[in-house]
Amino acid sequence: MTTKLQQVAGGGLLSRRLFLQKSLIFASASSLSTGPSAATPEPERPAWMKRPGKPFSNYGSPSEFEKETIRWTMGNQLVPGNGVSWTPLHELEGMITPNGLHFERHHNGVPDIDPTQQALMIHGLVKKPLFFSVSNLLRYPMQSKICFIECGGNSNAGWRNQPIQSKAGYFHGMASCSEWTGVPLKILLQETGLLKAAQWVIAEGADASAMNISIPLEKILDDCLVALYQNGERIRPENGYPMRLLAPGWEGVTNVKWLRRLHITAQPSMVRNETAKYTELLPSGKARQFSFVMQAKSLITNPSPGQHLDKPGLYQIKGLAWSGNGKIKKVEVSADGGKSWAEAELQAPVLDKCFTRFRIPWQWDGKPTTLKSRVTDETGYIQPERVALIAKRGRHGYFHYNAIVSWAVDEDGSIRHVYA
Amino acid sequence: MTTKLQQVAGGGLLSRRLFLQKSLIFASASSLSTGPSAATPEPERPAWMKRPGKPFSNYGSPSEFEKETIRWTMGNQLVPGNGVSWTPLHELEGMITPNGLHFERHHNGVPDIDPTQQALMIHGLVKKPLFFSVSNLLRYPMQSKICFIECGGNSNAGWRNQPIQSKAGYFHGMASCSEWTGVPLKILLQETGLLKAAQWVIAEGADASAMNISIPLEKILDDCLVALYQNGERIRPENGYPMRLLAPGWEGVTNVKWLRRLHITAQPSMVRNETAKYTELLPSGKARQFSFVMQAKSLITNPSPGQHLDKPGLYQIKGLAWSGNGKIKKVEVSADGGKSWAEAELQAPVLDKCFTRFRIPWQWDGKPTTLKSRVTDETGYIQPERVALIAKRGRHGYFHYNAIVSWAVDEDGSIRHVYA
Repeated sequence: MTTKLQQVAGGGLLSRRLFLQKSLIFASASSLSTGPSAATPEPERPAWMKRPGKPFSNYGSPSEFEKETIRWTMGNQLVPGNGVSWTPLHELEGMITPNGLHFERHHNGVPDIDPTQQALMIHGLVKKPLFFSVSNLLRYPMQSKICFIECGGNSNAGWRNQPIQSKAGYFHGMASCSEWTGVPLKILLQETGLLKAAQWVIAEGADASAMNISIPLEKILDDCLVALYQNGERIRPENGYPMRLLAPGWEGVTNVKWLRRLHITAQPSMVRNETAKYTELLPSGKARQFSFVMQAKSLITNPSPGQHLDKPGLYQIKGLAWSGNGKIKKVEVSADGGKSWAEAELQAPVLDKCFTRFRIPWQWDGKPTTLKSRVTDETGYIQPERVALIAKRGRHGYFHYNAIVSWAVDEDGSIRHVYA
Repeated sequence: MTTKLQQVAGGGLLSRRLFLQKSLIFASASSLSTGPSAATPEPERPAWMKRPGKPFSNYGSPSEFEKETIRWTMGNQLVPGNGVSWTPLHELEGMITPNGLHFERHHNGVPDIDPTQQALMIHGLVKKPLFFSVSNLLRYPMQSKICFIECGGNSNAGWRNQPIQSKAGYFHGMASCSEWTGVPLKILLQETGLLKAAQWVIAEGADASAMNISIPLEKILDDCLVALYQNGERIRPENGYPMRLLAPGWEGVTNVKWLRRLHITAQPSMVRNETAKYTELLPSGKARQFSFVMQAKSLITNPSPGQHLDKPGLYQIKGLAWSGNGKIKKVEVSADGGKSWAEAELQAPVLDKCFTRFRIPWQWDGKPTTLKSRVTDETGYIQPERVALIAKRGRHGYFHYNAIVSWAVDEDGSIRHVYA
């Protein structure tokens, strides 16, 4: 199969609109021996058509045949509730992460919270400190937002000297995307009132580590929610049941789970998560602190390490892009190691601070090459090459790694992570 | 609490933008006795902050405290796999239905399909009949669409002489909304080619009832997908694993689950699901057949039967609207039994053939009244009152009930379904 197709960039990249115009063979479907005819017989009925199926269920689960599609967990051996689990981005499609597969980052496990015993306290530099029970909050006006949450430490393996060979999701999958619904914090703070000196908010969770972090009041008033719902249903325990802070586009740690307290202050508290962590030494010797916004990132999820190209031919390259600064403007893909680039199709709707699925057709000629993706967000920010990111940020980084990701395609169709 | 607020319609409806401008008390949060002070003490730490939490999990589940949020199942006693389960719309927020709660309609249960043994056969009036295995299909170009699927028989209790008193989701919840991802059928039919006489497609499922239905080829070529993913992950068994037909905006029965065969024909097949079912006698004596498109519908999910208003005061009325003909243009709400109407806020993004969440603030004065919602879609179609629907469609209807829904609020704060 060697269809002659017009390339739009090197290495076999084809127009993103190609398949709407042409008849193309992407995979070798089997011909029916009978040939063209309206009378082709019905295929043999499989076993599951010959017996009644399973009954209805009050709450569904994935197929037994999808048991391998899991979030990969990595708990600390000494402190089992401290660690992460990754969303298997390489197994998923579209932009929504199903609730069962949303990534986790816990410091001391998932608390088992009775929602009738949980309240949100807002105090400090306010006119009238208040407790909001869950049933109070459920009566307040709500808003929904489809957006990503990404751990500030996502993709940190990119800082290592050698490229790791994990699957794409187990490298970049401390990022997930859901429809969150909750009460705008602006409304609750209108009710407590604010004193003039109010500038910061210390958010605290009700887990056993009493996880806390300082957030500028301006962000809280701008677009933060007390989220109670995730993809339609009440938030899952590992995502903060019964309520979490949602800080769209900001590093995961600010999206405090099991939210119990907002302490309004004049200054940040300089707690562990803004001093010992999330602060990094730059090449200049200065410290980079309060680097809240997650910069634009993209990666190719198909093909990616652990997947395999059966043979030369047509494929659809697919991936995800997102930016904490707004919408995705474009994603370019290279199939020749960055020498040339072609624009991928963005799946509508392209939303603010949200996963955006990109796709582009590609004809692999069977030769070794390197695939890359590069996102530009609506602010004009362009995802940097790894060399440029390191030049700017130095070698003391651990957080906010967002360099271009390179996958080498070998002659046998296997995919490797490379620095290229 | 008797705040003086400007009404925008009778019965206490307030401007949908009100809460962004004013400080309002929606629920009585508890004051902290200490009064305004930066030194308010930390609240008592609950039990779950004093012990390590639960470990990481490969696939998450809802909280034990949400065990009542289920799809309500109603199987046929004699044929347990024949029946429905409803999405609890009255318990959900936003527009996405989580996969565990998507409604079900099965004719002979949920088949347990091995995806390596399942293929889609396309035959009949084609140039080259083909089998597409699941692994073939996974290589094809994909598209995603966030849209609703609604059973043609949803809300059919509305045809009864007396209003039923089920919860909103157990009356109107044979409708759910997901992000579906799959292969456009247009691409697969480019590959098989079509003979000139081709006009209809008979889609068949691989369940034990071999459920089938005739669909015009025009719709199939327009926007139908072979869907393999639902909200990011592979489709659940009860939603057609490993693949289903997605026919956006068309009655559920055309979205054939466990899809195994597309038979291209010149005429519809006049199978059971288009003769014994889904065909209705009109007042004129004519039969209404092939009524594929789901007309615009809306309903208030909060407050709704089974819920309760604690006392007079401010509430947010919330609901869902959708149309098989496109986007929602507006939703109006009445809090005086239809005498006056006010426009609700629509949650962005408002998408084509998709659930659209609407919300509007409402000040209940404690007196009995009736709440209604009325949707207008982008074609200009306006959801009819029940009397008008019956005048047009007669009393032999069972399918496509989409009249305005009326909830009576009683003095004690309880909510009843009424015909009003």
